[in-house]
Amino acid sequence: MALIVQKYGGTSVGSVERIQEVAKKVIQYRKDGHDIVVVVSAMSGETNRLLALAKEINPDPRGRELDVLLSTGEQVTIALLSMTLEQMGMPAQSYTGSQVKILTDDAHNKARIMQIDDEKMRQDLSDGKVVVVAGFQGCDEQGNITTLGRGGSDTTAVALAAALKADECQIYTDVDGVYTTDPRVVPEARRLDHITFEEMLEMASLGAKVLQIRSVEFAGKYNVPLRVLSSFTEGGGTLITSEESSMEQALISGIAFNRDEAKLTILGVPDQPGVAHKILGPIAKQNIEVDMIIQNTGHDATTDFTFTVHRNDYQTALNLLKETSVSLGAREVTGDEHIAKISLVGVGMRSHAGIASTMFETLAEENINISMISTSEIKISVVVNEKYLELSVRALHKAFELEHCN
Amino acid sequence: MALIVQKYGGTSVGSVERIQEVAKKVIQYRKDGHDIVVVVSAMSGETNRLLALAKEINPDPRGRELDVLLSTGEQVTIALLSMTLEQMGMPAQSYTGSQVKILTDDAHNKARIMQIDDEKMRQDLSDGKVVVVAGFQGCDEQGNITTLGRGGSDTTAVALAAALKADECQIYTDVDGVYTTDPRVVPEARRLDHITFEEMLEMASLGAKVLQIRSVEFAGKYNVPLRVLSSFTEGGGTLITSEESSMEQALISGIAFNRDEAKLTILGVPDQPGVAHKILGPIAKQNIEVDMIIQNTGHDATTDFTFTVHRNDYQTALNLLKETSVSLGAREVTGDEHIAKISLVGVGMRSHAGIASTMFETLAEENINISMISTSEIKISVVVNEKYLELSVRALHKAFELEHCN
Repeated sequence: MALIVQKYGGTSVGSVERIQEVAKKVIQYRKDGHDIVVVVSAMSGETNRLLALAKEINPDPRGRELDVLLSTGEQVTIALLSMTLEQMGMPAQSYTGSQVKILTDDAHNKARIMQIDDEKMRQDLSDGKVVVVAGFQGCDEQGNITTLGRGGSDTTAVALAAALKADECQIYTDVDGVYTTDPRVVPEARRLDHITFEEMLEMASLGAKVLQIRSVEFAGKYNVPLRVLSSFTEGGGTLITSEESSMEQALISGIAFNRDEAKLTILGVPDQPGVAHKILGPIAKQNIEVDMIIQNTGHDATTDFTFTVHRNDYQTALNLLKETSVSLGAREVTGDEHIAKISLVGVGMRSHAGIASTMFETLAEENINISMISTSEIKISVVVNEKYLELSVRALHKAFELEHCN
Repeated sequence: MALIVQKYGGTSVGSVERIQEVAKKVIQYRKDGHDIVVVVSAMSGETNRLLALAKEINPDPRGRELDVLLSTGEQVTIALLSMTLEQMGMPAQSYTGSQVKILTDDAHNKARIMQIDDEKMRQDLSDGKVVVVAGFQGCDEQGNITTLGRGGSDTTAVALAAALKADECQIYTDVDGVYTTDPRVVPEARRLDHITFEEMLEMASLGAKVLQIRSVEFAGKYNVPLRVLSSFTEGGGTLITSEESSMEQALISGIAFNRDEAKLTILGVPDQPGVAHKILGPIAKQNIEVDMIIQNTGHDATTDFTFTVHRNDYQTALNLLKETSVSLGAREVTGDEHIAKISLVGVGMRSHAGIASTMFETLAEENINISMISTSEIKISVVVNEKYLELSVRALHKAFELEHCN
């Protein structure tokens, strides 16, 4: 008998019928002898409906009042799911974030959880009830309703699991797990039974949009085993834990990629201390996030400097860079919006050499030119021309035999 | 400068445009120098939408979960109204019932207010903010969300006014005040500038459906001046207070009527102690409410007994009465579904004789037969054939010159 926290997203509770399916799943777990705490989102479409009402009134409503409004979405779901469970003969008890209570800071619309009171939940569980908690919300010390921001229900689930020292936190979504790469690009992509928090963070931040990064970080920090499953199909999903030392640890867990970025290069910059700051300072001031950064020492007393930003920020960044170029006396500024970033992710890299060279060899065999390379302990990322994205991912997937369980 | 509690019902906040109208009204009062606490209902249709969702799941959902669900309706409105006020440059602060907090007992769906904490509201008012409170809801000592039952927002407003010792509690609705009688029956009916709590209670319970009886009782108990006004038209509405001693106190304030009732009579019952209980006991056991009760001593050792019930309960009551008739050895049971009850209401009756006789004379002149008469300190009610309802009301309205300010 385990204590399991389950989280169901908006599409999983999008209608009375869907809510009934969720209730059946919950009851099955109860029958198997587990204690269950369920975290739910607003019914799909509801948050957008409420946001539209708010925007009709005030394009920039005060955070406090927006949270009062938006938090009603999850409150409706907890009531409906509890009623459904009770209708099916399963005692249940619902809680809003304020009722639990999930104490947050007072940063409305993007609050952070400070503390969770588990007393009521423990009492209900020991009374044999299913506990149903509104995701995405909490309250600050003054009792003001707060929300955690979009996707915050995942974070609520992980935080509850941590507070309750749950055996597992299950995130039900519309995919059945984490794959070695996007199956739309590589049909042979395989669902991973297991992945580490670190790998998941690299996969998620690199474009495998399964879980909110924040909830994975949270789960890693508190070492809460996290499982991604489908609400709509059967299967064990993917378990995300901190265990790295299984006997047959895979070398590479997966290949993440994105085409959200653009590349900017400033050539022939005088190679002096502080030049990186002079180049990136104006970019940062405009709140533009920089991802990869590469500096090559040049031939003479100059250096070349390349970095990537989100494509939406490309034009702004390019204009800033041109201004900087003039003041620095650089030779030239170039840019490219048509790039793709591909990353091999795997904790196995730590102990295995030669992965980078296999990666470069594979791409060379396909005549794909690499324009940037960046490495970390468990990841190698390359930037290539966008048109080679699919080809690169397929070739790498095959080269590292990711279609096989290894 | 006064402290005013205003309550706006569902149709008054039924759309973004309506909410903007409410905000303008509130801001005007602020500009006139008053402190304002606003109580709002759910947007019209919202409570029914939520109820329908609940019924789809569970025809008899647990009260606690139903309250969690229904309370979101007002929560949406407080957020939207606060945003609107702020958009118009007026600082505002919203509160759910739990946040204020409005402490109730734990009778879900029909909770009673026990205590109200006015600390946050007073602080906000002294900070120059408009306070916006969700009607209809509160929370019990354990922090469970409760609702006061339909129409409970009026009660919330009065309770807040009492707690804050407000100068006036204004109930905005879709009528512009309390009339001497229903203007659809008597076009000359006049809006009353002033009426007492007692009169209002008699008017309301007798069919003038302007205010929830419960909120009038509450206002009377705590002596909160209550004003009924229209959200949609200008005008001073009707003020309801305990003052009875104005110089020109009207003799009769109004004429209430209804055709919701049916009459049952048991004839020739042996006139013994306890007979009323034997007749009404079985009726009460079926939770049927009895309104008027009249017993006439008969000629011999028997008595006749007549009472009225709601028309919906007529058949059930008639069947019960027939069974009682057999066991009591009564002579006959008769009934009439086609009756109307007409009531003259006025505190002036206390000090003026002759009102009943004027009433009977007026009806006699129209050849209208009275089948039941019942009197209280400030009310005389008669039952007549339903078909004479309009004629009776018009004749009485004229006889007591209610169309004139008197």
